[in-house]
Amino acid sequence: MEDAVNLARLLSERLGAGAVLTDPADMVRYCRDWHGDVTTGAVAVLRPASTEAVSAAVRLCAELGLSIVPQGGNTGLALGGIPDRPQSEVVLSLERMNRIRSIAPDDFSAIVDAGCVLEAIKAAVDAEGCYFPLALGAQGSCQIGGNVSTNAGGINVLRYGMTRELILGLEVVLADGTVWDGLSTLRKDNRGIDLKQLFIGAEGTLGIVTGVAIKLLPKPEHVETALLALPSVEAAMALYRRARRDCCDLISAFELMRPEAFSFARDAHPDLPQSLPTDYPAYVLTELTATGPIDLRAMLEAFLEKEMEAGEILDGVIAASRQQALNLWKVREGMNEGQAMRGPHLRTDLSVPLSRVADYIAEVSAAIAQSMPQCDVAAYGHVGDGNIHFNVIPPRGASRAEAEAVIKTAKTILYDILDRYDGSLSAEHGIGRLKKADFVQRMPEAQERLLRALKSALDPEWQMNPGCQIDPRPREPKKEI
Amino acid sequence: MEDAVNLARLLSERLGAGAVLTDPADMVRYCRDWHGDVTTGAVAVLRPASTEAVSAAVRLCAELGLSIVPQGGNTGLALGGIPDRPQSEVVLSLERMNRIRSIAPDDFSAIVDAGCVLEAIKAAVDAEGCYFPLALGAQGSCQIGGNVSTNAGGINVLRYGMTRELILGLEVVLADGTVWDGLSTLRKDNRGIDLKQLFIGAEGTLGIVTGVAIKLLPKPEHVETALLALPSVEAAMALYRRARRDCCDLISAFELMRPEAFSFARDAHPDLPQSLPTDYPAYVLTELTATGPIDLRAMLEAFLEKEMEAGEILDGVIAASRQQALNLWKVREGMNEGQAMRGPHLRTDLSVPLSRVADYIAEVSAAIAQSMPQCDVAAYGHVGDGNIHFNVIPPRGASRAEAEAVIKTAKTILYDILDRYDGSLSAEHGIGRLKKADFVQRMPEAQERLLRALKSALDPEWQMNPGCQIDPRPREPKKEI
Repeated sequence: MEDAVNLARLLSERLGAGAVLTDPADMVRYCRDWHGDVTTGAVAVLRPASTEAVSAAVRLCAELGLSIVPQGGNTGLALGGIPDRPQSEVVLSLERMNRIRSIAPDDFSAIVDAGCVLEAIKAAVDAEGCYFPLALGAQGSCQIGGNVSTNAGGINVLRYGMTRELILGLEVVLADGTVWDGLSTLRKDNRGIDLKQLFIGAEGTLGIVTGVAIKLLPKPEHVETALLALPSVEAAMALYRRARRDCCDLISAFELMRPEAFSFARDAHPDLPQSLPTDYPAYVLTELTATGPIDLRAMLEAFLEKEMEAGEILDGVIAASRQQALNLWKVREGMNEGQAMRGPHLRTDLSVPLSRVADYIAEVSAAIAQSMPQCDVAAYGHVGDGNIHFNVIPPRGASRAEAEAVIKTAKTILYDILDRYDGSLSAEHGIGRLKKADFVQRMPEAQERLLRALKSALDPEWQMNPGCQIDPRPREPKKEI
Repeated sequence: MEDAVNLARLLSERLGAGAVLTDPADMVRYCRDWHGDVTTGAVAVLRPASTEAVSAAVRLCAELGLSIVPQGGNTGLALGGIPDRPQSEVVLSLERMNRIRSIAPDDFSAIVDAGCVLEAIKAAVDAEGCYFPLALGAQGSCQIGGNVSTNAGGINVLRYGMTRELILGLEVVLADGTVWDGLSTLRKDNRGIDLKQLFIGAEGTLGIVTGVAIKLLPKPEHVETALLALPSVEAAMALYRRARRDCCDLISAFELMRPEAFSFARDAHPDLPQSLPTDYPAYVLTELTATGPIDLRAMLEAFLEKEMEAGEILDGVIAASRQQALNLWKVREGMNEGQAMRGPHLRTDLSVPLSRVADYIAEVSAAIAQSMPQCDVAAYGHVGDGNIHFNVIPPRGASRAEAEAVIKTAKTILYDILDRYDGSLSAEHGIGRLKKADFVQRMPEAQERLLRALKSALDPEWQMNPGCQIDPRPREPKKEI
């Protein structure tokens, strides 16, 4: 292989200097993950501005023997978009492909470039009286192509599904540079094997998503938000089952928190208004959403009244205004910021069957309390989907090495218990590079063979994001003739 | 290849006579499609009773060079489960794998054998207070494995999605006999590429689905059904857009019919009660479904009142009882039976973008009226999804040959116009063998290459349902040495 500097020069010459970054100072933001845990490098960062330019870049990289790490807004939490072979990989950023191609309110659909920022899409369709329900903390910078490639989740999955369920069609540049045009906006299309499904959640290992056709919905006219205090996590899960039925399946969020949420949130926002006493065993932040002439507030009030009379809910507050609702959500978001302020810690993204959420949290809490009592924990999540973020935070003042040791031990404890619960080690963040080893280690042989066959069929040279999800087999040493 | 009789004998010896049918009289019901249009044959019909037995059968067929046509309830409408190479294919029926493996109401999930009849699943989960929303005319005999393999649609797609959106996990026997266990009931699981998506809608070409984990919902407590008369198809589509918003997205069915629906239905059920005058230009049969303390009737009445006052709806009736609702649905179902009584005719299963449904129906109606005025047409469908069944029925007394000529000409007219509307020639029935030629002919080269690569990766010998969806390439003639 030619050395990286020569390769970078060739890329600039052939793709145009404006589309190629090669200065390490310019490249650093594409080569560092969102948390700042990992910084690496690349031969170059390519910034094609059209589908054709992506195709040309892919062909050129194949010719030069370079691998490609596609990247959206670089807000991923599993290192799926960060190169790990700086001498042989380029980052291909979609950020210049940021055009809303079309919005069709009467079809409840839109077509957008992969590099469109999620919030920009939400605003553009809102202006047409429509709603795109995908919602996550990073929506101000994440891009829809990344959302598709990681099959992003977020706070509205309960009602509207993961990104997969919001996608009508895709345009993808394949490993050989061919453009596959699957950009249909048909609501129902059952022409055999549904190829777009392959690329959703593939984190760019099978091709580069360049265009996305999305489902739109009528804009919600009513939103009701409540923060509830409960006697236990188990009570929260039982409440969810009744709420689904009694709130007409209009629940769009059902977020579990525990008392530690408030202290982490106050670390980040000392002036956070206190809505409820903060020493109850468990809390639920829930949101109901609806269009049309429904009295959503009355429905929620009636449900909560009944539950409080029965002693199932200990305390609660319904947001009286949008501002109050935002303050309630600020606890949920501030909790993450507060944890981040504590430096490196174990962040997980687990799921277990709904009926086992409470047991899992209890068992893991006890195990961590016993083996690392000096650590703080934060257990929360989108528990209406069985999705738990159970994080373990090293004690204040821990050194980097001490923190890393805590992370390693805690992860083993959590994952070992998770295996007994038939759980998933990635409920919504994806595998990327961060979870690859733990993922592959647990994979049944039949599944690994399927994945390898699939990858080799679509990307015979393993040049598309080769360090992500599953590693190429080491090449057989060439026999001497 | 050994001759078919010898092969059949070998299969019986190795798999046990009870699991193998070889008498043509026994095999005929597995080798004839639901409409009775096509009758063919097979080397044998295999009826394995367990996942292990399916695996053993697949291995044996590979050894004997036999191809396998998997079959569920044999209610498919695209000939996906009917062999077309009687000398080299076996039918593998899942009908003996009909065990409900588990129902977990607290997890809102169940695991069932692929051969379970849909109605049996619906009844079993209903007894546990749950609801499985997949609903189609054939539900008394279709099997869930077939629903998965064809990604079946039906009357509730609008609210609950196609089969794909109701599936949590699959167990699949692969082409080499390996069992892939993807039978998870997790609601959220984002561990990389989602392999189960490959097998949904693949019509058995990539493996045989043997077990299915399904999503359950709270049982609906309220159902409201209405039949509405409208001034035009266009008015019906506009009504749908307003209904989505004003009925809180609780619409589970929105079926378009035209006046001919009533005459076809009366051919099948002469005593059908008449709910509305039958000479309005367009009709909509709609259903709203909800759980919880919502006054669904009041919501529907308020909406209809407003629309009638505005002159958007000309006439209408809300079912006052379950029996009356069933009578309204009987028009929709009887219409199909009435068409079937007319013998061979063109049945289509198309979709176009929502905003183009009315134009498509108008354009096709005019073209058929002009070029084959002697034929009857029936245009109806799940138009909330853009799904139109536009059928063309040869005149009474037409000979088989005349009917076939009508079908051929009409299909060309419909599909040519469909291509200009960026439509799909299979909205919900799949491709099977019936639509293969039209499907492949319209397929972009990039897509064909992707599909072939995928098929060859998972089924290198093309032994799984090889005549379905896409044909194997003719083998290169062997060069003489």
